[in-house]
Amino acid sequence: MTSGSLPEDPRWVKSIRLIPPSLGDNTADADRLVTALNRAMGTTRIQISLEQFRELPDMLRRWQYQAKAVVFKSDPQTGILVHLAPPDDTTCLCGLAVDLGSTRVVLRLVDLAAGTTLGERVFDNPQIAVGPDILARIHYADTPSGLSRLRQLIIDGIQTELARLCQDCGVFPDRIHLAAISGNTAMTHLFLGITPRWMIREPYIPATNQPGLFTAAELGLTLSANARVFIFPNVGSYFGGDLISGMLYADLDQREETAMIVDVGTNAEVVLGNRDWMIACAGAAGPALEGGMSRMGTTAGPGVIDRVAIDPKTLTFDIHTIADAPPRGICGSGVIDLAAALFLSGMVDIRGKLRPERCGNRFQVQNGLAHLIIVPAESSATGKDLSISQADLDSLIRSKAAMYTILETLAASVGIQLENLSTFFVAGTFGAYIDPRSAITIGMIPDLALSCYQSLGNSSLGGAARILTDPPCLDRVNPIRDSITYLELNVNQDFMNRFSAAKFLPHTDRSRFPSVPLPPDHTGN
Amino acid sequence: MTSGSLPEDPRWVKSIRLIPPSLGDNTADADRLVTALNRAMGTTRIQISLEQFRELPDMLRRWQYQAKAVVFKSDPQTGILVHLAPPDDTTCLCGLAVDLGSTRVVLRLVDLAAGTTLGERVFDNPQIAVGPDILARIHYADTPSGLSRLRQLIIDGIQTELARLCQDCGVFPDRIHLAAISGNTAMTHLFLGITPRWMIREPYIPATNQPGLFTAAELGLTLSANARVFIFPNVGSYFGGDLISGMLYADLDQREETAMIVDVGTNAEVVLGNRDWMIACAGAAGPALEGGMSRMGTTAGPGVIDRVAIDPKTLTFDIHTIADAPPRGICGSGVIDLAAALFLSGMVDIRGKLRPERCGNRFQVQNGLAHLIIVPAESSATGKDLSISQADLDSLIRSKAAMYTILETLAASVGIQLENLSTFFVAGTFGAYIDPRSAITIGMIPDLALSCYQSLGNSSLGGAARILTDPPCLDRVNPIRDSITYLELNVNQDFMNRFSAAKFLPHTDRSRFPSVPLPPDHTGN
Repeated sequence: MTSGSLPEDPRWVKSIRLIPPSLGDNTADADRLVTALNRAMGTTRIQISLEQFRELPDMLRRWQYQAKAVVFKSDPQTGILVHLAPPDDTTCLCGLAVDLGSTRVVLRLVDLAAGTTLGERVFDNPQIAVGPDILARIHYADTPSGLSRLRQLIIDGIQTELARLCQDCGVFPDRIHLAAISGNTAMTHLFLGITPRWMIREPYIPATNQPGLFTAAELGLTLSANARVFIFPNVGSYFGGDLISGMLYADLDQREETAMIVDVGTNAEVVLGNRDWMIACAGAAGPALEGGMSRMGTTAGPGVIDRVAIDPKTLTFDIHTIADAPPRGICGSGVIDLAAALFLSGMVDIRGKLRPERCGNRFQVQNGLAHLIIVPAESSATGKDLSISQADLDSLIRSKAAMYTILETLAASVGIQLENLSTFFVAGTFGAYIDPRSAITIGMIPDLALSCYQSLGNSSLGGAARILTDPPCLDRVNPIRDSITYLELNVNQDFMNRFSAAKFLPHTDRSRFPSVPLPPDHTGN
Repeated sequence: MTSGSLPEDPRWVKSIRLIPPSLGDNTADADRLVTALNRAMGTTRIQISLEQFRELPDMLRRWQYQAKAVVFKSDPQTGILVHLAPPDDTTCLCGLAVDLGSTRVVLRLVDLAAGTTLGERVFDNPQIAVGPDILARIHYADTPSGLSRLRQLIIDGIQTELARLCQDCGVFPDRIHLAAISGNTAMTHLFLGITPRWMIREPYIPATNQPGLFTAAELGLTLSANARVFIFPNVGSYFGGDLISGMLYADLDQREETAMIVDVGTNAEVVLGNRDWMIACAGAAGPALEGGMSRMGTTAGPGVIDRVAIDPKTLTFDIHTIADAPPRGICGSGVIDLAAALFLSGMVDIRGKLRPERCGNRFQVQNGLAHLIIVPAESSATGKDLSISQADLDSLIRSKAAMYTILETLAASVGIQLENLSTFFVAGTFGAYIDPRSAITIGMIPDLALSCYQSLGNSSLGGAARILTDPPCLDRVNPIRDSITYLELNVNQDFMNRFSAAKFLPHTDRSRFPSVPLPPDHTGN
């Protein structure tokens, strides 16, 4: 072996030691580096920019033919020389992972050499100012300069927040050499300044599902001179790169046993599979799920109720709020806890209807609609009763029924019983906060052992970060994308039958939920 | 087959017909195009620029999912979408081939779709103003701003002359989508603005031997928005892309029988090989060859003697000048003709020495040096005698001996007898003008049947043009480069023995030149 990288480089940063040229080995400078990089990366080609060709001869001689190289790949065979630093460089070589949510954007700065996280920053997607939801933005993109304004909003937002994040971490943005960005298909289009208009018109065609790799400069991001930005591919209009990133993060493509990933954000997205096959569905499949969970829940914050328990005997409410502040609202996980507790205490029946005789003075009728007081006015932060209405409960029942029906339909399409899954990943905010026990109790998710449930956290961000710190992950992205079979959920008679059966607590078929105890008054009388 | 290009597209211009999207086939727009282009090009990946992603959706719909695409490859697996035009576009899609000579630069404009030549333009390399030869320029490149000035000179020169060429051809430079440029290693470096300084310092290392593909914009060339420029690779400091281009042009890599290519420009470069192997040598191998031929010859032009014959009986000179104008000088091909005729008529002996007794009143001694009057003052355009000195003849003998010795040494290194070659290509101006019969007579090239000799013309330009009009040629360039064994010509005892033996007309070993008749006075008395 005449030259090469040190073996201990499992990152995109490679320590390169070249044998200096001699009369017996007059390989050109760049070719010498290319050979070493190909060996270090397992590639057959290395892309070197014109500017790098110009700098190489002097750099290599100044550094005695040693260097640190930040590299990346545009495909499994093609390496890209992103940055060359002196062999004894001690400044941090950084990467930026971005979860490009339509509501919230999360930035994570990583140390490319160490593979560690340097810091994170969350901010509201500034495009909200133009359109609160993605559909409004897609329509806005069709107005004059609309698309470029939307693009500029998100680029500027990232750049501004990144500057703060960099300051917090004590690094300069020009030390960021790689970025990986995952978002849903529409967000990806808007970020790239590509029209999403054909995604919402029959036959629902994205401009691209595989945008690939760009320089930061062409995207309008000011990172290092030659920084590269990897954009996660999409499967289609309704199945985006954020989910592919999540599948990578969960190593779904490497598992022998079949696992399920559920991601409930603005939409519900579900993937089922293992290293041999993957099937997915997404979008507004169950009409009831739309806006259901999200409309009811308050954004998490101090005073928001996130845990509810009810003593089945005394019917005493045990309420926990974030930061233990006086209660001012309830978030999604709180609502699910509440519904489960109401059911187990017999305060709602198996249809989710409030039972006045069990609710006592917590039951009220306002404007002809039944309500349950969760926190009376004298204990709440707002000075008003915090209550949940029968309509809210009905909406929750429809949401959970839709969710369960989607899971069941997807599993049934490949002949799998939900009860036989050994791993069930719950992604996103939903996964981070809900109590699986409560979600099982209301029949939202299947009755698996609690050890089967794993919260993935922000899997979209996690997958993007892995691209930056774990090079073999990059080569897995397109195979994951290509192996997904997308199931178009038809709301047909089968689906409606399953949906109807799931609109009870926990289900009309109680044998599916053996772990859920019978409520005190299970006859519903 | 659902979509694709028409089968009759053996060019870089592909006519694409896509099946429009439908609910049953919701492939993204770009992905749909990528599939068709991969099929048309035999690639597995297609690079699409951000700007193209942005334009694609509207373009494809406007053109009913049909288009003309100008494509290229960055490697055998990776296609590049360079330009997209309407399916019924009738304007010419152009390519530019450049022979980047250190003395002269030649531009050729081609029609990418038809594969035809639109026009050519030749101009002096404007870098001559800074340094007449390449060594002077390499030194100048080391001065402050020297490199960037040299780069700007050649870029501006090409741009200016290209504008004229385009005007002559009735096209606009922004219709040029592809360019292919071949030059020697130093010229390639100067063109790219990469320092050539380490090429002339031991151990003689170029910055790069495989610069690859660039956008016209990054090189400073104003062609079409997304135009790509292919730069021929080099083998090393002394074996450049112009020669690789020439080997491609001669199809050396596809021949079953071994052939030789000789290119005499500023240096002599020789390649020997076939489809299985290639061996090459180049540079200032024979000390006598340096400046020999080129110093003596005048640049071709009206009145320059290009053909000379002498009646061996009457010793009458039969002289031909370019454009039949009154003689004012003699070019390289004329000198070789003259030397052969002098030898066959017995006016020089086998050492190339003038024989006063045969030369008659054409023999003169000026300043102690023997001369032969070719054209007396009364017939010449200058009003002075046109003559050749014994020193000129000695220099020619050394040059031809060095040439033959290089050919012989290269052939001997692979155990081949020059006499057994079936094809002998003579490239460049040298090849275009010399009379092989005369070159054989003086023993400069081996005594093969005249049908074995083929003049290649400007093979560097020819190879560059083939890259633009014959796509499979592109994939042959790197294999040619990689299969060349470069022979470092050591001026050792073997070489000097061969050189000494070749310093006679035609050679000390007359059996090698059976076709050359014995001169009237072959004893040399």
